[in-house]
Amino acid sequence: MPANDFFVSAPGKAILHGEHAVVHGKVALAVSLNLRTYLRLETTTTGKVCINLPNIDTFLCWNLTELKQLLPYSSKGEEMKRLDPELVQRLREFVGVTNGNLDTCNMATLSFLYLYLSLFGSSELPSLTLSVWSELPTGAGLGSSAAYSVCLAAALLSARGAIPTPLKEWCQEDLELINSWAFQGEMIIHGNPSGVDNAVGTWVPRSTKVLVARVKDKINKFPSIMTPVLDSVDAVSCTCEKVLSEMTSEPITGEHYNILEELIDINQHHLNVMGVGHPALDTLCRVTLTRGLHSKLTGAGGGGCGITLLRPETDSVVVQSTVQDLRDCGFDCWETSIGGPGVQQHAPLSVKEEVLEILNRY
Amino acid sequence: MPANDFFVSAPGKAILHGEHAVVHGKVALAVSLNLRTYLRLETTTTGKVCINLPNIDTFLCWNLTELKQLLPYSSKGEEMKRLDPELVQRLREFVGVTNGNLDTCNMATLSFLYLYLSLFGSSELPSLTLSVWSELPTGAGLGSSAAYSVCLAAALLSARGAIPTPLKEWCQEDLELINSWAFQGEMIIHGNPSGVDNAVGTWVPRSTKVLVARVKDKINKFPSIMTPVLDSVDAVSCTCEKVLSEMTSEPITGEHYNILEELIDINQHHLNVMGVGHPALDTLCRVTLTRGLHSKLTGAGGGGCGITLLRPETDSVVVQSTVQDLRDCGFDCWETSIGGPGVQQHAPLSVKEEVLEILNRY
Repeated sequence: MPANDFFVSAPGKAILHGEHAVVHGKVALAVSLNLRTYLRLETTTTGKVCINLPNIDTFLCWNLTELKQLLPYSSKGEEMKRLDPELVQRLREFVGVTNGNLDTCNMATLSFLYLYLSLFGSSELPSLTLSVWSELPTGAGLGSSAAYSVCLAAALLSARGAIPTPLKEWCQEDLELINSWAFQGEMIIHGNPSGVDNAVGTWVPRSTKVLVARVKDKINKFPSIMTPVLDSVDAVSCTCEKVLSEMTSEPITGEHYNILEELIDINQHHLNVMGVGHPALDTLCRVTLTRGLHSKLTGAGGGGCGITLLRPETDSVVVQSTVQDLRDCGFDCWETSIGGPGVQQHAPLSVKEEVLEILNRY
Repeated sequence: MPANDFFVSAPGKAILHGEHAVVHGKVALAVSLNLRTYLRLETTTTGKVCINLPNIDTFLCWNLTELKQLLPYSSKGEEMKRLDPELVQRLREFVGVTNGNLDTCNMATLSFLYLYLSLFGSSELPSLTLSVWSELPTGAGLGSSAAYSVCLAAALLSARGAIPTPLKEWCQEDLELINSWAFQGEMIIHGNPSGVDNAVGTWVPRSTKVLVARVKDKINKFPSIMTPVLDSVDAVSCTCEKVLSEMTSEPITGEHYNILEELIDINQHHLNVMGVGHPALDTLCRVTLTRGLHSKLTGAGGGGCGITLLRPETDSVVVQSTVQDLRDCGFDCWETSIGGPGVQQHAPLSVKEEVLEILNRY
């Protein structure tokens, strides 16, 4: 146990362009957000393993003796491309979810227990308390589950001594190890990834399967109409990537933002053509456009989450009025920038005070 | 003068799919409407030529002596693919519009005088009164100007004795003659057709040039994004034509209408992507969709006219409520079917009573 009180965080993600099209072999453009999930891992001497997930009202404790009954478990070592079906089944019975439908709480629990037992099953099970707080909405397509899995993997791997505790970002090799374990957590949450392309499955919420099937059906029904639409979405993603890249290498102009806005509008129409729009998303677009702001859905669609581009010159009064308009329509709003750092370890003092306050409650 | 009181009518048209895309070499699907323009031509002995266009508050009379001053005019006979620039210039001076901007009244007047003098200039000018009433809105993209030109050509050619007065539809050869003269009237109304594809220029109102240019600009700006969109629109037109054809050859099912609705929704999004949408058209789509009805713009877009599909089982109460909702939003509504007859001559008794009443007022 190299650390007995340990903070990590991982960012949420948004798909700027290419959701759904990516399932059909097209380019998608995903970016990290500065909305993050924070995890505190405390090694204890209580003989218990506890997880506190206040975002989803989940507070669970198990005695180590209980968890030991789930062993013997022989870790498959390097083979981390697929889940161990035997362990998954044993865990499902343990938490009492033997049918197919898992709620967020069950998925988060299973995901934690799977990683915990896989990583510590071959040695002694440690007593620990794990608390997670996220600035991200759950199940809205902003990568809250991926951020959770990444935090879990980073914290448990550190606790296991498999990676160092650098008090900042990890090196590439360690990040790859974290990512491969996080992917296993994601597989627990998103079910059998053979059914849905993992590249999308990592980012979007549970209704993904239905929405992906809806697009697939529409392509089958109108191939000559839909195939060019996917090509156009692909070109939108590539054009957006080119513009964002120009914006880092040359002076940013209003025209850059004009093009980003045009691309947002075009892709929102394409997503509607693909059948994954929603009246609430139409309302979002209409409400923001009355303030001169352009929006599109992000992620799976059919509800979920949208993104609205704020230009640098957008007056804060306009932003506040728009947020108020949207809240009046029943929307939640988060203001964020894109391109934040990936998973990192924090010294307690470098964690935002309000997050620290929440994590230290448990 | 084979007839001294003479009625003709011609239908309006709607573009179901392919407006704008047709300018870029794609398929467009246009259909006739059962909303028609009616023309009454009366040969008189007043020594005057009068036109009465109550839809646009235009009531003009000229003495034959005035009109004779516009001659000598030597008809070019067969060469009807382009306008005689000398006659056009003389007529523009005559009606006092020497700058480029013609209003609807000026265009209708010029178009009439051009056809009248071209057809009768080489013989004696007849004294006549011409009254036109249209069920079509002006300048909304429903082919009101084309229907006007077709009626003018049919009536004046009949008065000239160049075609018979069959009291029904004309034979193919006569229709081609009517069409070639009507096209000249269209050229007067829509300006220099070399600037805008005639296939669209025949159907859509004056803002066409601006809207066509807008689409062209967008294609130039984002070729990789827009080219597939045009391909998709092309496939929408072809799919719609196939479905309509199936509906004439096999039992009509609900699924036929479902597909027509899907195609309407898809193309409306594509037209928005092409930059020819309008908030009023968005409102139209939203208002009708709340009643389960699907709409798209028709014609040039950027305002203008939209079409809403009524399924055979759509309750008349729903139709009435929708019309009321739309009127409350400031829209005018016309209920029509597609596939009405082309230009035809009428016996007075076969003209609808309310139309006859209007035409006989003058």
